[in-house]
Amino acid sequence: MSPNSFDQLCEYTRETALLESVAELLQWDERTKMPPAAGAYRAEQITYLSAMVHRRRTDPRVGDWLDELAGSDLANDPHSDAGATIRELRREYDKLTKVPQQLVEELTRASVLGQQAWVEARKNDDFKSFAPTLEKIVGLKRQQAAAVGYAECPYDALLDDFEPGELTSNVSKILAALRKELVPLVAAIHDSSIKPNLSLLQQHYPLPEQETFGIQAARAIGFDFNRGRLDITHHPFCAGMGPHDCRLTTRYDEHFFPSAFFSILHEAGHGIYDQGLRTEQFGLPPGSYLSLGIHESQSRMWENMVGRSLPFWRHFFPQAQAAFPTALGDVELKAFYLAVNDVRPSLIRVEADEATYNLHIIIRFELEQALINDELPIADLSAAWKEKYRDYLGIEPPNDADGVLQDVHWSAALIGYFPTYALGNLYAAQFFAQAAEDVGPFEPQFERGDFQPLFNWLHEKIHQRGKRYTATELVADITGNRLSHRPLIAYLRKKYDSLYQLSDD
Amino acid sequence: MSPNSFDQLCEYTRETALLESVAELLQWDERTKMPPAAGAYRAEQITYLSAMVHRRRTDPRVGDWLDELAGSDLANDPHSDAGATIRELRREYDKLTKVPQQLVEELTRASVLGQQAWVEARKNDDFKSFAPTLEKIVGLKRQQAAAVGYAECPYDALLDDFEPGELTSNVSKILAALRKELVPLVAAIHDSSIKPNLSLLQQHYPLPEQETFGIQAARAIGFDFNRGRLDITHHPFCAGMGPHDCRLTTRYDEHFFPSAFFSILHEAGHGIYDQGLRTEQFGLPPGSYLSLGIHESQSRMWENMVGRSLPFWRHFFPQAQAAFPTALGDVELKAFYLAVNDVRPSLIRVEADEATYNLHIIIRFELEQALINDELPIADLSAAWKEKYRDYLGIEPPNDADGVLQDVHWSAALIGYFPTYALGNLYAAQFFAQAAEDVGPFEPQFERGDFQPLFNWLHEKIHQRGKRYTATELVADITGNRLSHRPLIAYLRKKYDSLYQLSDD
Repeated sequence: MSPNSFDQLCEYTRETALLESVAELLQWDERTKMPPAAGAYRAEQITYLSAMVHRRRTDPRVGDWLDELAGSDLANDPHSDAGATIRELRREYDKLTKVPQQLVEELTRASVLGQQAWVEARKNDDFKSFAPTLEKIVGLKRQQAAAVGYAECPYDALLDDFEPGELTSNVSKILAALRKELVPLVAAIHDSSIKPNLSLLQQHYPLPEQETFGIQAARAIGFDFNRGRLDITHHPFCAGMGPHDCRLTTRYDEHFFPSAFFSILHEAGHGIYDQGLRTEQFGLPPGSYLSLGIHESQSRMWENMVGRSLPFWRHFFPQAQAAFPTALGDVELKAFYLAVNDVRPSLIRVEADEATYNLHIIIRFELEQALINDELPIADLSAAWKEKYRDYLGIEPPNDADGVLQDVHWSAALIGYFPTYALGNLYAAQFFAQAAEDVGPFEPQFERGDFQPLFNWLHEKIHQRGKRYTATELVADITGNRLSHRPLIAYLRKKYDSLYQLSDD
Repeated sequence: MSPNSFDQLCEYTRETALLESVAELLQWDERTKMPPAAGAYRAEQITYLSAMVHRRRTDPRVGDWLDELAGSDLANDPHSDAGATIRELRREYDKLTKVPQQLVEELTRASVLGQQAWVEARKNDDFKSFAPTLEKIVGLKRQQAAAVGYAECPYDALLDDFEPGELTSNVSKILAALRKELVPLVAAIHDSSIKPNLSLLQQHYPLPEQETFGIQAARAIGFDFNRGRLDITHHPFCAGMGPHDCRLTTRYDEHFFPSAFFSILHEAGHGIYDQGLRTEQFGLPPGSYLSLGIHESQSRMWENMVGRSLPFWRHFFPQAQAAFPTALGDVELKAFYLAVNDVRPSLIRVEADEATYNLHIIIRFELEQALINDELPIADLSAAWKEKYRDYLGIEPPNDADGVLQDVHWSAALIGYFPTYALGNLYAAQFFAQAAEDVGPFEPQFERGDFQPLFNWLHEKIHQRGKRYTATELVADITGNRLSHRPLIAYLRKKYDSLYQLSDD
């Protein structure tokens, strides 16, 4: 009886994943290729498929199969393929069915209207007009948290959507410790007499050569273009739409080299994770990514720990010079390396460097918790935002468009999402340090363009495991420790001490 | 009761069309963008959606709604939106439900395996290995015809899939008359002392300029790039995936100008029809294309009657010279015009000119009828093919790869499809002559780049009418006559008499 239920459950879940993969293509196409006038019908297509997917994920038959499988032999080992499948599908089914259909629809509607209102508000630098929309969204997210339930605080329920099983208290503790170290580090870099020459990145970098060079680097670190591609979009992303179909996107700035190059490396990092998932388990938990934080750890590691390292550029700089002779022909490797590691407090999260980036996240994490806990009236949000930027980064946004209105997330009802960016950096540093111990040292490898040992380590330790372990279990299993701020701080300290001669201060 | 059934029927049909439009995107992507390794999963996605669409089109509820609507006021006027909707959906439902599910699956399977076998057989020039596959397919198509029923002969049932309501006897009569005129016309051109200089089309035509110039021409004749786009593929096609999303494709040959340019015009002709359908009726018969023959009439008209005309090039040639100064800078308009109207018997249908093209079709039409009627054993097909090429075109294929194995259609179980290409040319000539009477003369209009009168005429008379009339009714309504070979012969005679000075012979 049980094995049959299990097969039926898997077959049904695979079909649901197939429909989701089709919706992914619709969305990728919308953001890369779709003719301008086709938007309204595309929205209908996506809504229709998404509703079908939601109906299937909450279909009572799924609950019945899971009930039949509860306590069966297949469910015994929670880390086996079958055990993890049952555990994770149960988790998802329970969570989804706890939210009343009406609330699901209200949230969808609020998210669509919210994003429209946000676009207008941001354009007009008019937070006031956006406030009622945000109020509504926060209210609905509180209802969602109440419906789903939580371990310690309502925010737990929201965080869990993106970082399953993670607790607000744990993240708060780690990010508070991180902040304490980051604020003085950023200040020390600010005071350093070493100043990168950014103008060398702002020369003319022709688009076709940027694309060729970016593809070359993405391929070198392990992204498989036989199973993927690279296109142009407004806001870079990576999307998978099948076990052998993962697509990167970027945007090019002919007068700023890092824009496309590092976003390609970043998305390729996501893509390598995607391509490393077990294809025969596509659509099932053992073949699915673990959490947004773990996903982000892969993109940030390749983008920053590898892509902004000196050994990486020892290998690639001569190729960059050959590709962009006018811009880089006379530039020294060290000057280039320093320029791509410029650190300075800025207003815009997506343009932030490795050191300040997490402060942007911490600000959002603190503010959205206060909103959900009803400790901060929406009317005071803009002022609170500015205060935190002053306190943590020493700068203050002159307006709301580049302040509290800069991100789409809240308008799209994505609350609990932001901390996964910082978790990604933390996981990345902790994994990277362990990988270096296990299969490093990486410096000589990267210098000769050999990224295979790191790729293989990630493939085996993380990608191939899918959702068989929770993120907490995975970190403990791989590194022998709980997640901590220390590896990231150690990494940043080491890098910037040497780049900005901080120990001399 | 009835109006309610009608609304439900329309709503349901619109949803089915939405799923079909998603399948269109999957197929467009497969042929233009998809990474090489993603093919197997893409086939699963398409198969899954196609099965869903077929289940919906044959859902008993559709039959029930149609039964309730039979004889209702809404069904009274067969040319009204409602009347045509009921009539056409009834037609489709009856036809689809007559074919047993098992036969549907066998046909799908035979088509997939058939195409695989065909690729191999063509590569190895080995018709013998393909013969059993074709035997199987012909047998299944006979079964399909028997299940569906037909007016006069089994081939009628197959033809009806592509040219609804058309009869084999009628097409045979027209194509036989056409052939009688074409064979001597082609021979006369062959004997003419006027010989186009093809080498001027085989200079270097850089790809980016070809694309820009092609887009410029497609836009000039009326294709709306706000509601469409142009991409690269192996075998050019046009695909609609929503009321405001129609996509053209082409392939570029840097050393043969006509290849991309005329395929862009051809696909833009299809696209203009697609874009001209009533968007609020998308997915319903009044907003659907009428038949493959009518669709092809639009592409062939813009490609040939407009795009290969002297006034068209009087307008575009200076622009072509500016785009391709090395290739065309010193070329005379007349030499160019003659070169793009080169007529010569050839082996390959898709490369054939306006005059010989229909002979390629007639050969296939005659042979596939003989196959379905069991008058020609598969073992004799290759010999019969060669004989007909000798008789009608005066040349004989040296092998089967460029002979009986050259087209994918039969291997894909598309029997009854070929005549729609010739019907397209016939409709095009008859419509074009009428349009010239109604809103012409076109020569001065085309010469100044004004294609609006023809565009508007087609939009009103054909595109906006969708499936409200049968093709036979439409032709009669627009031209006052039944479809005939005479307008096409008159058009070709006039064009080639002057180009090749045939009247002098």
